[in-house]
Amino acid sequence: MKAVILAAGQGRRLSGGGVSFPKVLAKVAGRELLYRHLKLLRERGVEEFIVVVNPWTKAPINDALLRWGFPFRLVINERPELGNGYSLLQARDYVDGTFFVVMGDHVYEEAFLDEAIKGQGLIVDRRGEFIDRDEATKVILQDGRVRDIGKDVPGEWYDTGFFVLDREIFDHAEAVLKEKGKVEMSDVVKRAELRVTEVSGRLWLDVDTPQDLKRATRFIVRRSVKPTGDGLISRVINRRLSLLLSERLVNRLSPNQASLLSTLVGLLASLFASISPPLGGVLYQVSSILDGTDGEIARSSMKESAFGGWMDSILDRVVDFSFLLSLGLFLGPGVSWPVVALAIFGSLMVSYTSERYRAATQRDLYEDIPLLLRIGGKRDERIFLVMFLCILEMIEECLWALALWTNARLLAVLFLVWRKGRKGA
Amino acid sequence: MKAVILAAGQGRRLSGGGVSFPKVLAKVAGRELLYRHLKLLRERGVEEFIVVVNPWTKAPINDALLRWGFPFRLVINERPELGNGYSLLQARDYVDGTFFVVMGDHVYEEAFLDEAIKGQGLIVDRRGEFIDRDEATKVILQDGRVRDIGKDVPGEWYDTGFFVLDREIFDHAEAVLKEKGKVEMSDVVKRAELRVTEVSGRLWLDVDTPQDLKRATRFIVRRSVKPTGDGLISRVINRRLSLLLSERLVNRLSPNQASLLSTLVGLLASLFASISPPLGGVLYQVSSILDGTDGEIARSSMKESAFGGWMDSILDRVVDFSFLLSLGLFLGPGVSWPVVALAIFGSLMVSYTSERYRAATQRDLYEDIPLLLRIGGKRDERIFLVMFLCILEMIEECLWALALWTNARLLAVLFLVWRKGRKGA
Repeated sequence: MKAVILAAGQGRRLSGGGVSFPKVLAKVAGRELLYRHLKLLRERGVEEFIVVVNPWTKAPINDALLRWGFPFRLVINERPELGNGYSLLQARDYVDGTFFVVMGDHVYEEAFLDEAIKGQGLIVDRRGEFIDRDEATKVILQDGRVRDIGKDVPGEWYDTGFFVLDREIFDHAEAVLKEKGKVEMSDVVKRAELRVTEVSGRLWLDVDTPQDLKRATRFIVRRSVKPTGDGLISRVINRRLSLLLSERLVNRLSPNQASLLSTLVGLLASLFASISPPLGGVLYQVSSILDGTDGEIARSSMKESAFGGWMDSILDRVVDFSFLLSLGLFLGPGVSWPVVALAIFGSLMVSYTSERYRAATQRDLYEDIPLLLRIGGKRDERIFLVMFLCILEMIEECLWALALWTNARLLAVLFLVWRKGRKGA
Repeated sequence: MKAVILAAGQGRRLSGGGVSFPKVLAKVAGRELLYRHLKLLRERGVEEFIVVVNPWTKAPINDALLRWGFPFRLVINERPELGNGYSLLQARDYVDGTFFVVMGDHVYEEAFLDEAIKGQGLIVDRRGEFIDRDEATKVILQDGRVRDIGKDVPGEWYDTGFFVLDREIFDHAEAVLKEKGKVEMSDVVKRAELRVTEVSGRLWLDVDTPQDLKRATRFIVRRSVKPTGDGLISRVINRRLSLLLSERLVNRLSPNQASLLSTLVGLLASLFASISPPLGGVLYQVSSILDGTDGEIARSSMKESAFGGWMDSILDRVVDFSFLLSLGLFLGPGVSWPVVALAIFGSLMVSYTSERYRAATQRDLYEDIPLLLRIGGKRDERIFLVMFLCILEMIEECLWALALWTNARLLAVLFLVWRKGRKGA
């Protein structure tokens, strides 16, 4: 299957009036609009992309395509002023059978595409949850086909800019061109009385203005949170703050840089902990919030890597160790150091048990044994407790609490996995 | 594809003269001979097993087959004294096309079966490395077919007891039966001038006597060592001893019991470490040797489980922690406890980094970055060093050495994985 990406739009509103800025190279959540289409559609089996551009943006788009390495063919629309239907016509010689047509300046989430690629004709959405409904192209349907379409049409459906078409569409585009001297996709759709397929409630929107870019970034970052893995404090506090940060950082920091930032703040927290535990504790919690951003940035900007996740985990363990060591040092010669050692060991083992479980079974420990989530002891929860007790200057109590909590959890997880293994065998 | 398992042999030499003991239920390395055939052939695509038994061993074999749950059909040879060729004839109505015939009292390793199932006719071995060559059935070949076969035949090939046949074989068996009044497989093979396929140098042997059982167990246990994963001390010292132990324990202990034994000795070592480090150190090394047995027992007795491996890892971490804690306690109030903490943290992180790597990539850290093996610091190596320094009563030096070694390794692994990630990206 092939996909035609209509990317000859001139992005005037995004570039402040210039014509040489290719709109599809604008970044949403750290990734170019065009890259998002190619990556997500490629993963869904598209074999070649026909990218239609205008003469002024040809060069930068060609460079980007070569850099990314997806299979593509660049087609130039010498007269973009004749409309995006004219762009579609330029792809005529390069497609066959059924193919996708995608508005290059739109953003779609994966769940949208999963459904849309199975559809027929124009993909429409009844809710238009994420778009500016006044500005949007509305559609009036009759018997599952388009009767009318346009910005000012009183339709109850929204045109998502995603099409599943065959070559018949070119005849309609030709006819419109002859008749009007120019050709927009909406004219073609109307003339063809295109079938429609509903995909409602998924994230998609078109990007026209810098405000749209920001909104799109916000939506995508918010959707990047993994459903599992978060402890209570993460869900209630940390995620809300880290998402706000990620929205602002995603175009500026790589995931690894975000990891490093969180680690540096964590090490700084450790440094302070041996002098002023309250200050150290607060910084520790700040680093815990920052620790959410690397994953959010990685997922929303499509820069996830196994190595990045690994590095983040190891650095978290280093920070946890150095913070608890510092708390112990703060207590001076009177410290019950075995309690510090137990707190260090138990804290590490929370992560060790679940990572070792994933290594052994390729499954998630918390999904297999949900009871563990109620026992708690995950990093976000531990750090929040530490901050709280550090502010109250209850350092010894803090270390005792951690030592008992995490090692009780260790005993529990040993028992629960052993029981599960016995049942399974 | 189906497989006929000839299991009507009476196992007199294994049971000390009784006739009711089914030879194929004798255990080699913790698993019944019959179970080994079924498990390994099932994994290689066999859909049904025709198990030919004698009237006296029918009941226990039927019970075992029901318990194991492989798809089977039990066929009774009412007159086992007529030879194993007569057993084969009993399977006549239940097979079609090409099928395997396997001597139930043989043991084959996986590598043998991988090749044998692709063969034709009788599988022969030129080397007979693992068998009693005098007692073995020899084969003389001509043009890739059997010319003569028998114990006293001066052949240079050994009959492995594994056949890939079609229904023609039954006609030959019938003919031999009519002629001689009884029918052995070797007579059938000779009359059919069966094609042969060579599979040489793989582990296979037949089990007749209690001595054979022991030898087979020894060979299988020795083959159960995973090629990767062992540190220097394991390869040079621990494995040799743990294999000797596993040979003796495999029919007595489950893998989990072996894990538990190693853990208990390790905890005992920790207890002693705070009183007498030399004694503790030696016990620690003993537990390290025992720690090899659970995996060996699990693999050689086909009782591997993800849960078992997980449990073993967690318990190893608990033992390491408690031993180092005890060494710290031995030093009394003058202890530099942060060094103990560093040694504990660094030791844990050796395992954490590699398990987290496997969780993230499903690959082995040491295979991806072999340099790490030269840096060392794996558990077997650490424990050996600890024992050595404990015997010399150099406890502080021991803790310093561990703290420096393992944390230097941690820095190295962070750098090496980071570099690998950059190259890959």
